[in-house]
Amino acid sequence: MNEIKLVSRTGGTNTHIQIGRLTVGLDFILIAGPCSVENEIQTLEIARAVQAAGADMLRGGAFKPRTSPYAFQGLGLKGLKILAMAREETGLPIVSEVLDTRDVAWMCDYVDVLQIGARNIQNFPLLKEAGKARKPVLLKRGMHSTLSEWLNCAEYILSEGNPNVILCERGIRTFETYTRNTLDLSAVPAIKELSHLPVIVDPAHGTGRVSLIAPMSLAAVASGADGLIIEVHGDPKMALSDSDQALTPQQFLAVSRKIRSLRLFMESLN
Amino acid sequence: MNEIKLVSRTGGTNTHIQIGRLTVGLDFILIAGPCSVENEIQTLEIARAVQAAGADMLRGGAFKPRTSPYAFQGLGLKGLKILAMAREETGLPIVSEVLDTRDVAWMCDYVDVLQIGARNIQNFPLLKEAGKARKPVLLKRGMHSTLSEWLNCAEYILSEGNPNVILCERGIRTFETYTRNTLDLSAVPAIKELSHLPVIVDPAHGTGRVSLIAPMSLAAVASGADGLIIEVHGDPKMALSDSDQALTPQQFLAVSRKIRSLRLFMESLN
Amino acid sequence: MNEIKLVSRTGGTNTHIQIGRLTVGLDFILIAGPCSVENEIQTLEIARAVQAAGADMLRGGAFKPRTSPYAFQGLGLKGLKILAMAREETGLPIVSEVLDTRDVAWMCDYVDVLQIGARNIQNFPLLKEAGKARKPVLLKRGMHSTLSEWLNCAEYILSEGNPNVILCERGIRTFETYTRNTLDLSAVPAIKELSHLPVIVDPAHGTGRVSLIAPMSLAAVASGADGLIIEVHGDPKMALSDSDQALTPQQFLAVSRKIRSLRLFMESLN
Amino acid sequence: MNEIKLVSRTGGTNTHIQIGRLTVGLDFILIAGPCSVENEIQTLEIARAVQAAGADMLRGGAFKPRTSPYAFQGLGLKGLKILAMAREETGLPIVSEVLDTRDVAWMCDYVDVLQIGARNIQNFPLLKEAGKARKPVLLKRGMHSTLSEWLNCAEYILSEGNPNVILCERGIRTFETYTRNTLDLSAVPAIKELSHLPVIVDPAHGTGRVSLIAPMSLAAVASGADGLIIEVHGDPKMALSDSDQALTPQQFLAVSRKIRSLRLFMESLN
Repeated sequence: MNEIKLVSRTGGTNTHIQIGRLTVGLDFILIAGPCSVENEIQTLEIARAVQAAGADMLRGGAFKPRTSPYAFQGLGLKGLKILAMAREETGLPIVSEVLDTRDVAWMCDYVDVLQIGARNIQNFPLLKEAGKARKPVLLKRGMHSTLSEWLNCAEYILSEGNPNVILCERGIRTFETYTRNTLDLSAVPAIKELSHLPVIVDPAHGTGRVSLIAPMSLAAVASGADGLIIEVHGDPKMALSDSDQALTPQQFLAVSRKIRSLRLFMESLN
Repeated sequence: MNEIKLVSRTGGTNTHIQIGRLTVGLDFILIAGPCSVENEIQTLEIARAVQAAGADMLRGGAFKPRTSPYAFQGLGLKGLKILAMAREETGLPIVSEVLDTRDVAWMCDYVDVLQIGARNIQNFPLLKEAGKARKPVLLKRGMHSTLSEWLNCAEYILSEGNPNVILCERGIRTFETYTRNTLDLSAVPAIKELSHLPVIVDPAHGTGRVSLIAPMSLAAVASGADGLIIEVHGDPKMALSDSDQALTPQQFLAVSRKIRSLRLFMESLN
Repeated sequence: MNEIKLVSRTGGTNTHIQIGRLTVGLDFILIAGPCSVENEIQTLEIARAVQAAGADMLRGGAFKPRTSPYAFQGLGLKGLKILAMAREETGLPIVSEVLDTRDVAWMCDYVDVLQIGARNIQNFPLLKEAGKARKPVLLKRGMHSTLSEWLNCAEYILSEGNPNVILCERGIRTFETYTRNTLDLSAVPAIKELSHLPVIVDPAHGTGRVSLIAPMSLAAVASGADGLIIEVHGDPKMALSDSDQALTPQQFLAVSRKIRSLRLFMESLN
Repeated sequence: MNEIKLVSRTGGTNTHIQIGRLTVGLDFILIAGPCSVENEIQTLEIARAVQAAGADMLRGGAFKPRTSPYAFQGLGLKGLKILAMAREETGLPIVSEVLDTRDVAWMCDYVDVLQIGARNIQNFPLLKEAGKARKPVLLKRGMHSTLSEWLNCAEYILSEGNPNVILCERGIRTFETYTRNTLDLSAVPAIKELSHLPVIVDPAHGTGRVSLIAPMSLAAVASGADGLIIEVHGDPKMALSDSDQALTPQQFLAVSRKIRSLRLFMESLN
């Protein structure tokens, strides 16, 4: 029941997705940037810093899914325009989250990868719209999604005609309270035996603690992940969202070097 | 942090919502009907049967959020028209789920209560649209929602101007596998101490087992719930969705009588 | 796999356990008393109060399983002697928890029912010793136990020769933080369709909140439970353990009356 | 509340535990062997094979905590004697689980490390006995233990006088069903910031799938673990317990080489 077809391992060879100069699924990709686009200066500074530190793509939220209606909800179109400026200057492809079916089509003019977040994992109309979009989709696991359900969500996108889905493990909700979520790294090799889609890891949301981002990034590389997405902010304590889990550009540079080095070592190990 | 305002117990007196002849929050409401609207004959037959058995409103899904893209997705507009016919004939107000921001406004022409399901609990654009709608909203708890998060979702709706929210406990996801979800009845008195909104219970989704619907319905009444929503199907084994958790009209009649009787007793107990 | 035999519904008719004048599984039993036996005066006062309020048995911990080694660990033998005095005076049978295989045999000289707590649910040597004991066993569900695992733990006791097991639902561990645990009342009718053993409910541990004890006690009765076990303390704020979830004798009296009244009503409903 | 003292990071420098030629907490330790000691020939063959493949210690269960009373419960004393023979022949220190307070003292004559399993994580009398034992203790995380609770369990052992505790992450219970448990690798760096105790990882119980043992072993090394404990069986399909999650000696050899190689690389990275 609920069997996957198009995303199944038996449904095809490893998916490779060309984004700019990168081939996701082949090259290891490092996506970095602020949780939220706050303003032009902040975003351009972070964009330059993460590019200098070796990031392959820029992430940044223009539409933010926030628990409270009174929390910062993102800059919307203005935020997307700032991201487009950052791409103009740095050449980094842009990853940004879409929340509303009405926004999918026009957001493709601004972003290179549409992110669908954990809270929308079973927003099926949104998945279907993403399936009709002409951009790759970064599909985060829901905080309550089994692997089977997550793959079925990807199946919604592929079955509408878009084969370019990147899965992203970002932690599941458990009883543990020390970490914000429990990062399930076993999902990486598990997804690889179930599906041909690439899978990356989000250690910042997965743990919610700056101190755990570096070790869990390295563990993700060793588990076989195809990339990482990491929150970076020039002044994390002042960030308008997720201030507890963003690296400074300096911290990102240090972990980025270890990540690249470990990835090379892992390739030599196989 | 994430403090609720408008939905808070301190934010107002008990909310009463007038729907037809009923006052939700004051009268005990019994909502019944098929998981999916499958066709006109099926729906009208069930509508008549649940009305005869004492139901106050008719539920039925025209847009179905299904794990797999290959499962029955609902009849859409056609389903809503069938529900409107059932209301015409029986006088029962209609509760039906909305999945897409683009559908909220026009669906209000067909339904009396907009349901937002567990999978869309943090679909914030949908909550905002529902907040602008001119119909009451039945807001199910997400399978991974804490009480605090759930109430914040209701806050999204109230903060957009719609005060008429009915909360619905429908089970949370746990490690237990005997039941489909774990029905958290403690949510009923807990919500009542945190908020002034009415709260009802869905014992069918909450347990996923026909045999547990009756005892959990009675337990919900004893816990102080303002109502129940129960799946009823003329031939559950042939249902296009949720065939394992629907009562027959005869079973519904039997449990409906006990529910009403227990509710009267509970009122005498206080 | 892991199929139960002796505890299975098909393995026998409803188990009735004679304890003093009571027949557990037939009579509704109300067990009340302090979390910990703290001293003679406290215990005797509570014993008299709960007896006056209609309790059928006295609970009280002499050996306490505490998260921290620096928390009060119970009075041990001295506590059991105090409980025996309370029985002497009130005639109430005694329920007390055993933690160690070495204590099972001799504790039977002091208690009428051996309690095995949630933390020892898979302490198999302890279950086996309890299976050899000549006293009934109150077996609490583990905070992580599936129904299947829980029944297998009871099977350990029955397979060693002791048929007198009372199951006790006390909440499972979930992601919710408002309540200490999530009380799974669906376990009551579920266990009744799987097994012939009696099942009672612990609403104090199940919720961890005084305000939720009364509504969840009533919900437990409506779900079909064979009894309740409730913490009562003369001065809850000063209790050496579980001070947040004990009723005063006055509160217990009020809820006890409603419980008995509802139970009578439920019997008339069937 | 429930604050740890002796096991706290601030309570001491990194704990080093001498076991034979190894210093746990400094050397990376690889523990391997069968789930259960089944007979002399099986155990000696596996002991020789894992030694040849680079294991540092031999694990093997003589007392098995099994869900069902009708499942194989271990060979008991006979199993311990077989393990002692294996140590005699190979020189590998022995790790074996203790279930009962009555067995702690005499089992120290046979084993080098006492294992306390997930099911006994809050069997406080057993923790206290282990605290009085003259052998190091391998303390597995409970399937429902928060990090705080787990460390408090270690505190029980240290507070009784035994400073030699090795923590072992073995997966927690979540809603996911593809894996037997969810291996929480973030526990490794989290424990290292909270405590000075060494922490190892059990990828076989943590995932319950042979195919995931190798990638999760490598991920554990990258996360900073002090060692691994891996089930190895000469003929996994015929194993009397845990047949789905044991490596063959050949598979263990292959992963063992990668583990050692990656560990060396990780040391060079810091």
